[in-house]
Amino acid sequence: MDRKVLVIKRLKGCGRMKRDVSIGIDIGGTKIVAGLVTVEGEVLYKQIVPTATEGKEQIIFQLQQMINDLLKEAHKLRLPTLKGIGIGTAGQIDFKNGIVRSGTSNIKDWNDIPLKHEIQRLFGFPTWIDNDVNVVALAESYLGAAKGYNNVVFLTLGTGIGGAVIQEGKLLHGEWGGAAELGHMSVDRNGPACNCGYKGCLEAYASGTGIANQMKRMLRKNPELYDGQIENITARDVFQWASEGKQFAKSLLDKAIDALAYGTVNIIHAFNPSLLVIGGGIIDQHSWIITDLQNRVRSLGISSLVQSVSFKKAAFGDEAGVIGAAYQSFLYSQNVQKEGASNEG
Amino acid sequence: MDRKVLVIKRLKGCGRMKRDVSIGIDIGGTKIVAGLVTVEGEVLYKQIVPTATEGKEQIIFQLQQMINDLLKEAHKLRLPTLKGIGIGTAGQIDFKNGIVRSGTSNIKDWNDIPLKHEIQRLFGFPTWIDNDVNVVALAESYLGAAKGYNNVVFLTLGTGIGGAVIQEGKLLHGEWGGAAELGHMSVDRNGPACNCGYKGCLEAYASGTGIANQMKRMLRKNPELYDGQIENITARDVFQWASEGKQFAKSLLDKAIDALAYGTVNIIHAFNPSLLVIGGGIIDQHSWIITDLQNRVRSLGISSLVQSVSFKKAAFGDEAGVIGAAYQSFLYSQNVQKEGASNEG
Repeated sequence: MDRKVLVIKRLKGCGRMKRDVSIGIDIGGTKIVAGLVTVEGEVLYKQIVPTATEGKEQIIFQLQQMINDLLKEAHKLRLPTLKGIGIGTAGQIDFKNGIVRSGTSNIKDWNDIPLKHEIQRLFGFPTWIDNDVNVVALAESYLGAAKGYNNVVFLTLGTGIGGAVIQEGKLLHGEWGGAAELGHMSVDRNGPACNCGYKGCLEAYASGTGIANQMKRMLRKNPELYDGQIENITARDVFQWASEGKQFAKSLLDKAIDALAYGTVNIIHAFNPSLLVIGGGIIDQHSWIITDLQNRVRSLGISSLVQSVSFKKAAFGDEAGVIGAAYQSFLYSQNVQKEGASNEG
Repeated sequence: MDRKVLVIKRLKGCGRMKRDVSIGIDIGGTKIVAGLVTVEGEVLYKQIVPTATEGKEQIIFQLQQMINDLLKEAHKLRLPTLKGIGIGTAGQIDFKNGIVRSGTSNIKDWNDIPLKHEIQRLFGFPTWIDNDVNVVALAESYLGAAKGYNNVVFLTLGTGIGGAVIQEGKLLHGEWGGAAELGHMSVDRNGPACNCGYKGCLEAYASGTGIANQMKRMLRKNPELYDGQIENITARDVFQWASEGKQFAKSLLDKAIDALAYGTVNIIHAFNPSLLVIGGGIIDQHSWIITDLQNRVRSLGISSLVQSVSFKKAAFGDEAGVIGAAYQSFLYSQNVQKEGASNEG
C-alpha cells in the first residue's frame, strides 16, 4: 500500500522530523468522519459521529465539537501547527467561494452554507471545501491508484454515481466547482427518469438506486418473476439473483453495464484521460465490472481515445474521503508538490 | 467587431510601433488558408489554395510554398521577426508532440505526420499544431465571443460537429490532445450509427451529414413523401422543407435539436462552463437554433448548472481558423496574456 511505503521512506530520509498534518473532514449522509492526517496520508487520529438529522445548524455544531477534539488531540500528540482544515461533502460545492450550494437529499437542509468562512471564522485556520468525490480523487491522485498520472477520470459507483476529473495534475472545477457531474451524463434521451430531473443518466441505470429502481420496474411489469415485496428490493438482491443465474437479473445488469460503457466512452471522448479509476460500494463488492466495462468501452468508442486509457480499481477504501479532504490543505497552501515531495528541506 | 476595436486601441496607445505578427495556417478538406496575422487578430495578408488531393507529401509541399510566399510578403511589409508558425487542421492532433495522428477522411492520407518538427526543420521558426476547432476556440476566446470568459465550451455545427473546451483560460487537451471530441458524445445508445463507429453521436443527429442521412433514412421508409432522388438530399433541403412548413422535415429537425440539447446538457454537467459559443455553417444559416437549444437545455439539466450558462453565436466567420492558428504562437511563446495585453511596454 502506497501510504505505508511513503511513510517509511520519509522516516528513513529525515529521521524523526515534524510531519505536516492537516484536519480532514468527510461529511456524508449517514456519518461524519474527521481525522488528523499526515501529508503521507496516514490518519493519526479519527472520530466518527452519525450525521445530525436536524439540519445545518446542528451539523455545523457537530463540526465545531469534532474540530475542537482534534485540536486537543493534536496538542497531546505534540504535532506541529496544522496546515489547515479540508472538508469534503456530497452535493454541489462552490469551490471558489467555499459554499455548499445544494447538498444531497440525504443531508437535511444542506444548502446555501458559506461553510469555508464559517469554519475559518471559528478556528482561524485556512479552510477548503470541495465535493466528496473531488477530494477522493485527490487522495487517489497523490497517494493511491492514480499516482503518477496527470489526466485521470474517477467514477464512484455506490448509492449514486459520482465523478471527478484531474486535468494536467489539477482537479477540474469549471466555473464555480460544479464540473464532473458524470453520474448525470445521459446515454439515452428516451431513458428512465433520474432523481436529478434529467433522463437516461448513468445514475438511473448503474447506481445502487438505479439498479434497484430498474428491477422494481421490471418486476411490476412481470410479477410472475418474483413473489416477494417488490418495494424492498435492493441492488444487492439483483447482484445475488444474477450470481444464482437468474436470467432477468443478468439481463438487467448487462443493460446497466452497457449504459455505463456508453457513458464512459462519452467521458473518454470529452476528457482524453490516460487512466480511469473506479471505486465505490458496488465496485468493492463486484470488481469484475471493471474488466467487463473496459472490454465494452474498447469496442465502442473512437479507437485512438479508448485504447489509450487504462482502467484501475480505487486503492483507498473508506478513509479516502477524510484523507483527500485533508489533502486540500497540503495542496492549496502550496507547500506540497505532486509526486509526494515534502515542504521541508 | 472586437478585432477592429483592438487595433485602433493599440495604435492610439503606442503610435506606429512594430506589431507582433505570426503565420497562421488553416488546413481544411477543400482549401488551405495561410495568413500573416497580428496579435490583434488582423489578417495583413492571406493566401488560399485548394487542398491537394494526392496525399500528405503534396500537402506539405503546398505548405512550404505558402510559407515561403508569406515570408517574402512579411519582408516586403517590413514586419518584425515573426513570432512563429501556428497550424490548425481537422482530425486528431497530438498537441504535445506536434503530430497529426489521424486526420479526417476529407484529406487523403492525412495521418501519422510529425508536422510540427517538419515545419520547424524547414523554416527554423517555433511551430505549433492543434485541432482546427481548438484553434477557432482560441480566436473566439482571446478576440471574439468568449473574450473575458474563463470557462467556455465551443461547438461547431457544420458538415460534422466539433468541440473545444477552455478551462481556467486554457485549452483542455487531455493526455495527448484528443479531448473535447464533443461531436462524438452519444445521447442514445440505441441511436443511429455514426461515421466514427460509435452510436447515437451528436454528429449522427445534428451535423449537416447527420441531418441529411437521417432524412434519407426517413424517406426510404416513407417513399410517398418525396419523388426526387433520395441520394442527393442535403441538410440544406431539410431546412428548406421545414421552412416551407413540411411536417416530416420539421419533426426531423426537432429531433436533431433535441439530441443536441441532451448532448449540450451532458457537456454542461461535465465542464460547468459559464459560456457556450456555437458556430459553424449550420449556425451561420440558422442562428435561431441557438435560442431554441438554450430553452431546451434550461428545462432539461441540473438547474444550478444549466441556468448559469450563457449562449452566444461565434463572432468570427471564415477567418477564425487562420487567426486562431496564428494565435498559438502569441500564446505559447509566452508573450501574450489573456485579455489582450501586448508584449511591448
